[in-house]
Amino acid sequence: MAVVGNERIDVPRGLKGVVVTDTELGDVRGAEGFYHYRQYSAIELAGTRSFEDVWFLFVHGRLPTAEEQAPFAAEIARLRVLPEELRPVLRSIALAGDRFDPLAGLRTALSLVGAARNLPPLWESAPPRRAADAMLIGAVTPTILAALHRIRAGAEPLEPRADLCTAANWLHLVTGREPEPVQVAAIERYLIATVDHGFNASTFTARVIASSGADLVSAVAGAIGAFSGPLHGGAPDRALEALDEIGSPERIDAWVRARIGAGERIMGFGHAVYRTEDPRAVMLAAIAAELAEQADAQGVELVEFAAAVHRRVTGILAELKPGRELHVNVEFYAGVVMQLCGIPRSMFTPTFAVSRVIGWCANILEPAEDTKIIRPSARYTGPQPPQPVPGA
Amino acid sequence: MAVVGNERIDVPRGLKGVVVTDTELGDVRGAEGFYHYRQYSAIELAGTRSFEDVWFLFVHGRLPTAEEQAPFAAEIARLRVLPEELRPVLRSIALAGDRFDPLAGLRTALSLVGAARNLPPLWESAPPRRAADAMLIGAVTPTILAALHRIRAGAEPLEPRADLCTAANWLHLVTGREPEPVQVAAIERYLIATVDHGFNASTFTARVIASSGADLVSAVAGAIGAFSGPLHGGAPDRALEALDEIGSPERIDAWVRARIGAGERIMGFGHAVYRTEDPRAVMLAAIAAELAEQADAQGVELVEFAAAVHRRVTGILAELKPGRELHVNVEFYAGVVMQLCGIPRSMFTPTFAVSRVIGWCANILEPAEDTKIIRPSARYTGPQPPQPVPGA
Repeated sequence: MAVVGNERIDVPRGLKGVVVTDTELGDVRGAEGFYHYRQYSAIELAGTRSFEDVWFLFVHGRLPTAEEQAPFAAEIARLRVLPEELRPVLRSIALAGDRFDPLAGLRTALSLVGAARNLPPLWESAPPRRAADAMLIGAVTPTILAALHRIRAGAEPLEPRADLCTAANWLHLVTGREPEPVQVAAIERYLIATVDHGFNASTFTARVIASSGADLVSAVAGAIGAFSGPLHGGAPDRALEALDEIGSPERIDAWVRARIGAGERIMGFGHAVYRTEDPRAVMLAAIAAELAEQADAQGVELVEFAAAVHRRVTGILAELKPGRELHVNVEFYAGVVMQLCGIPRSMFTPTFAVSRVIGWCANILEPAEDTKIIRPSARYTGPQPPQPVPGA
Repeated sequence: MAVVGNERIDVPRGLKGVVVTDTELGDVRGAEGFYHYRQYSAIELAGTRSFEDVWFLFVHGRLPTAEEQAPFAAEIARLRVLPEELRPVLRSIALAGDRFDPLAGLRTALSLVGAARNLPPLWESAPPRRAADAMLIGAVTPTILAALHRIRAGAEPLEPRADLCTAANWLHLVTGREPEPVQVAAIERYLIATVDHGFNASTFTARVIASSGADLVSAVAGAIGAFSGPLHGGAPDRALEALDEIGSPERIDAWVRARIGAGERIMGFGHAVYRTEDPRAVMLAAIAAELAEQADAQGVELVEFAAAVHRRVTGILAELKPGRELHVNVEFYAGVVMQLCGIPRSMFTPTFAVSRVIGWCANILEPAEDTKIIRPSARYTGPQPPQPVPGA
């Protein structure tokens, strides 16, 4: 589309449907309930490949060969140690604030890592340097988040283990226990399924910052900020809080009808893009059921209760808001799965960040070097200028 | 415009001309070489009002009355002290990296202030709390930047002075000297003229992050990242470096023709929106000439040389790139003005940040609480999915 001079173009609110760029990283087909990473179904990848393989797919544009898998995983394990520059300040970062905010801590810590390593502007560094920086940021993110959590809980951070995959190491660092294989498998599938998901607000933020030519960490720090917003998808803890609030199966109907009557959202239901079930939710519901097979009575009860709430809310929403296609989303079962894996509630959204940072980095590094800066317009709606300045 | 389903809308690259939102904060009229803050010419405000008055205009939507001026300025002075939570970590932040990056340091420090104060999600805090947080961030930004600079230079940070206005206090903190009135006036006009300027990449970044409902500091930290990018306007030091590189008047022509011949940009010329002279550049050229009247021989020579380069580059660009309307922009004379005010080159862009943070905060707080999250689309251009996952 050609633009002459400073013509202004009206588009839907929130830029809905507005195509900002081309991408080969993947897409979300909302009507079909399908999303993909490059040419592969993300859900199929989550069922068949390792998180490290999918990370490789985002970095290199293809899945690794059998020979490439071990060196790539070893490189991640090597980069996983806490950056030296954080040691003197990590306690101050972790203990800042009356309430623990792990994403704010991660933002601060990564910001310092970027400064300490003098990350160059994106298009002034060679592609191998950019790729190495992105590997580092992806590898240290779980280490930083878990260290902040442990310090805040009054414990010492644990050393990352090079013998574990990303998912197992994450469970080790956060829970301090030797993770169960069924839990590692569950978290690994969750991590794979949440690496990327279209042009959500955090991914778009990262792209806008990168379009100015800023460095990688500037873009990641901005993405973390957008990701922390309540309107962003990343709040699996709130869905679990809703389950707590409901309390027992016989209270479901009254609770749901009261919320809808008050015009409130039901946490864990509805999505900006999906007009059918969120495929991540379908996968996570199955994972929750698998975890329940090896869980204690409390775990079994949680999974059954979540499934009951899911059924009843879907039914009531179909009755009260016909045609709105409000389906269960990724948040709803994510909290259940993480709870069953022993992850504390404050670390639910950080777990999401562990995978999503890989997607942000891929989005930041994808554009060609001549990418145009993203600089839209606004419509001025105030009093007509220039008015004389009073007292001037 | 109505969008049915997941329709995709094509727009110009970089979202040029795409109207993201309504605003009453101001606008840029590129064809006229005019920009305004609310209903007032920004340049007229810079010639007639204090920086604090213009800050008030952004916060309250009108200029202060005579009775309101002193309490507002006193409030800023009160908030200007270094936040306690930064004291234990400021040295680590300032000394991170082989090369001093004041914006990365500011991003890290503000990120920690946000965490330490548990800044609530924007739309979950009452408007007075949001406004108070924004005042704090605006007031501590110069204190933090100057402290980082002093520590990096091997000196102790100076205490902010409550008896000085923002511009004078900034010169005091950065130079360690009692500022000259003519220098205070010059920097004050520069600060006023750079508070806001349309929907540039950093302002837009702040708006995108805020649209997710994140907290104020999340949005400001992201804006700082975009602001630090080489394609963003904020690099007055590079224009001065170009003057150094040219060296002397007789070398101007050869240097400019070589750059243009190599397809390179001339720093300090050309703007995304202005199709005529940047009104900020016109004002700064006049300020530089005023400063030259009281400057030493070196200062006088710099101003004369800059004016000569300005004339010759304009002439050569008109000859080699006819019709392109490549005029001098805000960067070109900003560096000259700051140099004449004794600000070290590493603090040129940070000086810009001292004013622009006020604009970011106003942009972050302007939207109504029901603002839609900014979530555009991308066009997938890779191989058609789903392909079967190899080895699956």
